[in-house]
Amino acid sequence: MEGQTSTSFETMIPKDFRHLVRKGQWNRPTSGVCKGYSQANLAILPKAVADDFLLFCVRNPKPCPVLDVIEAGSTHPSIGQESDIRTDLPRYKVFKKGELVEEPDNLLGIWREDLVSFLLGCSFSFETALMAAGIRIKHIDLNLRCPVYSTNIPCRPAGVFQGNMAVSMRPIPKKSVMKAIQITSRYPSVHGAPVHVGDPAEIGIEEINRPDFGDAVPFAPDEVPVFWACGVTPQLVAMKTRPEIMITHYPTYMYVSDLLNEELAAL
Amino acid sequence: MEGQTSTSFETMIPKDFRHLVRKGQWNRPTSGVCKGYSQANLAILPKAVADDFLLFCVRNPKPCPVLDVIEAGSTHPSIGQESDIRTDLPRYKVFKKGELVEEPDNLLGIWREDLVSFLLGCSFSFETALMAAGIRIKHIDLNLRCPVYSTNIPCRPAGVFQGNMAVSMRPIPKKSVMKAIQITSRYPSVHGAPVHVGDPAEIGIEEINRPDFGDAVPFAPDEVPVFWACGVTPQLVAMKTRPEIMITHYPTYMYVSDLLNEELAAL
Repeated sequence: MEGQTSTSFETMIPKDFRHLVRKGQWNRPTSGVCKGYSQANLAILPKAVADDFLLFCVRNPKPCPVLDVIEAGSTHPSIGQESDIRTDLPRYKVFKKGELVEEPDNLLGIWREDLVSFLLGCSFSFETALMAAGIRIKHIDLNLRCPVYSTNIPCRPAGVFQGNMAVSMRPIPKKSVMKAIQITSRYPSVHGAPVHVGDPAEIGIEEINRPDFGDAVPFAPDEVPVFWACGVTPQLVAMKTRPEIMITHYPTYMYVSDLLNEELAAL
Repeated sequence: MEGQTSTSFETMIPKDFRHLVRKGQWNRPTSGVCKGYSQANLAILPKAVADDFLLFCVRNPKPCPVLDVIEAGSTHPSIGQESDIRTDLPRYKVFKKGELVEEPDNLLGIWREDLVSFLLGCSFSFETALMAAGIRIKHIDLNLRCPVYSTNIPCRPAGVFQGNMAVSMRPIPKKSVMKAIQITSRYPSVHGAPVHVGDPAEIGIEEINRPDFGDAVPFAPDEVPVFWACGVTPQLVAMKTRPEIMITHYPTYMYVSDLLNEELAAL
């Protein structure tokens, strides 16, 4: 990474960026790299439960928008040229029976032939679209992590998988709420339109200042809370079943795909 | 059905219509019934291949838009209140190893616990939206079946399933093509935007006047052919694998769901 400015990572193409990651030369969050390209959440499960997990995603497309599925026996995403899912994220989390056991920077040592990988749409993509339309994302401005909450909105169950939806929240000025709904509606494969606007209690959130994950974000007087289905949902739901093994990306260390964000609006 | 006019079937709610079907009192195509509600294609496969079939649909959402999956052991769609998939379509086709063996009006006698049912979005829904915007659908005006063609556009394979996309074609006046693209783009769960406009040869169609299924539709001088991904695709692809058993709806005898067409534009 010597001699490279952050600008060069912004303009790098995903294939080259993934090559850096694979060589162990990138060990930071991926936000801001390869501008314009979609980043994805990762969930890896054994084949024995992966089919039910896919059905859970199909039944709950807002929290679980499937961008790619890598079948058992393969490690190559179709949304990333010359890519290997075992090496092309900067960091992973490995859970056994629901307990975190390891946070490795590759999966070469622990890979198994029966593992199925799911790449799921990520809110980075719609945040880019909101910002491009002049809507500021407060947690980014304040350098905080996006606040995420459990809700009382049930997901549709599938096989062993069931649970409520998790949502991310962004304070949006009242005058921009309609625009935010319109813009994110164009991106159903990265969570789409909000699931709720306004009173957090209506979706079972008791304390807006105490998110279940991420940081509390302060509100200005003209701002209302806007809630989008969150990609943490499928991980939480899967973890509840205490699968023999489950691997995810390390939060904010995402998979950088070859899909352009704008392509997601035209699928 | 005595004493009921065709208008009353138009305005009937789906639950009541399905009740008629279940009692064996409806044995005609379902076009025009329960106006405003989505009708769906049906494909039923044994669990042994159903998981691969679901993945095929996820990878090819334009020809295979999944509206509902009924897991093995159940016969109740979630998109139809008090409904049973074995009785609520007016006619079915049963294939064994790829050969048609029966066209029953219910599946009660042949149902098996390992069967998984897929309800897939149908072009009736987007045709309604086009007509509501003043774009005439020629095969409907001429009382013909919609022409459907095999193409050279490959689907993304999944497990045992692979093949090219089938498309439906509608002649659209040049001045309305853009509007037709805009309108159908709003309905990704019923095939979405066209996959091709213009020269049929570019997608491997040699004779526009000789469709592979349905009827040839004549062109006026100002009309161009517009092609949409077709729900026949998943059936053709599955049939190629000669599954031990596969059941589909009888063409034009569809499943009438509780989903409103307009809801499909806001998922």
